[in-house]
Amino acid sequence: MVDPRAARRAIRAGTHTGHTAGIAPGYVQGNLCILPREYAEDFHAFCERNPKPCPLLAISAPGDPRLPALAADLDIRTDVPSYRVFRDGEFVEDLRDIRHLWRDDLVAFVLGCSFSFEEALIEAGVPVRHIAQGRNVPMYLTSIDTEPAGPFHGKLVVSMRAFTPQNAIRAIQITSRYPRVHGAPVHIGKPELIGIEDLDQPWVGDATQVRADELPVFWACGVTPQSVVRNARPPLCITHTPGHMVVTDLTNASLVSTP
Amino acid sequence: MVDPRAARRAIRAGTHTGHTAGIAPGYVQGNLCILPREYAEDFHAFCERNPKPCPLLAISAPGDPRLPALAADLDIRTDVPSYRVFRDGEFVEDLRDIRHLWRDDLVAFVLGCSFSFEEALIEAGVPVRHIAQGRNVPMYLTSIDTEPAGPFHGKLVVSMRAFTPQNAIRAIQITSRYPRVHGAPVHIGKPELIGIEDLDQPWVGDATQVRADELPVFWACGVTPQSVVRNARPPLCITHTPGHMVVTDLTNASLVSTP
Repeated sequence: MVDPRAARRAIRAGTHTGHTAGIAPGYVQGNLCILPREYAEDFHAFCERNPKPCPLLAISAPGDPRLPALAADLDIRTDVPSYRVFRDGEFVEDLRDIRHLWRDDLVAFVLGCSFSFEEALIEAGVPVRHIAQGRNVPMYLTSIDTEPAGPFHGKLVVSMRAFTPQNAIRAIQITSRYPRVHGAPVHIGKPELIGIEDLDQPWVGDATQVRADELPVFWACGVTPQSVVRNARPPLCITHTPGHMVVTDLTNASLVSTP
Repeated sequence: MVDPRAARRAIRAGTHTGHTAGIAPGYVQGNLCILPREYAEDFHAFCERNPKPCPLLAISAPGDPRLPALAADLDIRTDVPSYRVFRDGEFVEDLRDIRHLWRDDLVAFVLGCSFSFEEALIEAGVPVRHIAQGRNVPMYLTSIDTEPAGPFHGKLVVSMRAFTPQNAIRAIQITSRYPRVHGAPVHIGKPELIGIEDLDQPWVGDATQVRADELPVFWACGVTPQSVVRNARPPLCITHTPGHMVVTDLTNASLVSTP
């Protein structure tokens, strides 16, 4: 599917239920975090204090399922292929539709996602293994603390991509130009220094090979809210299921920073 | 010495004979390579094909020891604290003055030097260990081939600085903005992949500790001409002695690229 509107229609109709990697290339996809209004202000502050894992793309008005800044037709209750429901900070279930859970006090936050910079890497000739293999990126819970805001606190989640040293340098240069989709990496080369003991055991996602001539490179990840929600324990929180993102009409090219 | 003109006067007078690290902060220093005219065109092409080790700042007219683009008073025969003389590609001697060797057919090439980006690193709060220790940067002959031009061919020389992973990422971002002084690193993390067997045994310069929580980061080095001259075997070649650079009136700030 090359058109983001067609992609959302297929997701809404239930004909596309898988992850969204490779869907609507050239268009921004986003991480989702829906919270009751009483948690929204603190979560907004959390995003602003942690712009690398939580680069804010848009916030809905309370109770309004639309996000016209991202796409005119977007309905956040139906347009994500898989939702993850947390109650009191605990995972409850993954759902394909959340219309029955929608309430007048819910606020939807959409955060930038690494799919945008991965496209820039591939266009620059820097191969990304998990994409070539059709797998989800491996994500790890680190020992790095986020900046807390109200009840939201916890450890940073990172995604990992393996590159040759030369491509790692290029990947740092390229992703530095995309601060609204996680920007430059937070770590390179020594996973044990950020509390990752075994690269073969990701927190979520699929393990990816790191060859002997490669370095693992780590980016702040938009799944971080799913880590801090476990600590904040809001009565209800709905996120996307990892890899199943909000497809928007914004172009990746529009996110490039010009320093 | 804070003023570059005062620095050159002291060098010219023989009162400053040591390396030039920390001299005239804020001002560009350069690598030097002087060759007979018959080699100049090929060496010029070599620099253009290898802009990372050999970023050209200025070329003199044949026989003219002045480089007014770098400083109005600069005399390339007297203003470098130590010169290295090669005959037929072999090192002969280090000299404090080359007026007696100057000829009407000599052409001086001045190339950008890492001192400029090291200053930018330190200003950004990224510590550079060999500078803090008052030592010369360690330089290594790699297995990476340069792009040949005429008789000039050979392996790339790199300089090494050790950083924590976070500072390595910042160092890549910062030095990417300085393409006229070697730019981004050429390698990170796995010296064995570029033919460096023992970091404790630099080709020139002083060995520097790489701590367990650090990565070695490698930049193309302006000492590379001293490697390729051994292959080209020109009857005469005069370079600076590593660490003993050409002090210019250009500011480091003037070298920042704005992409």
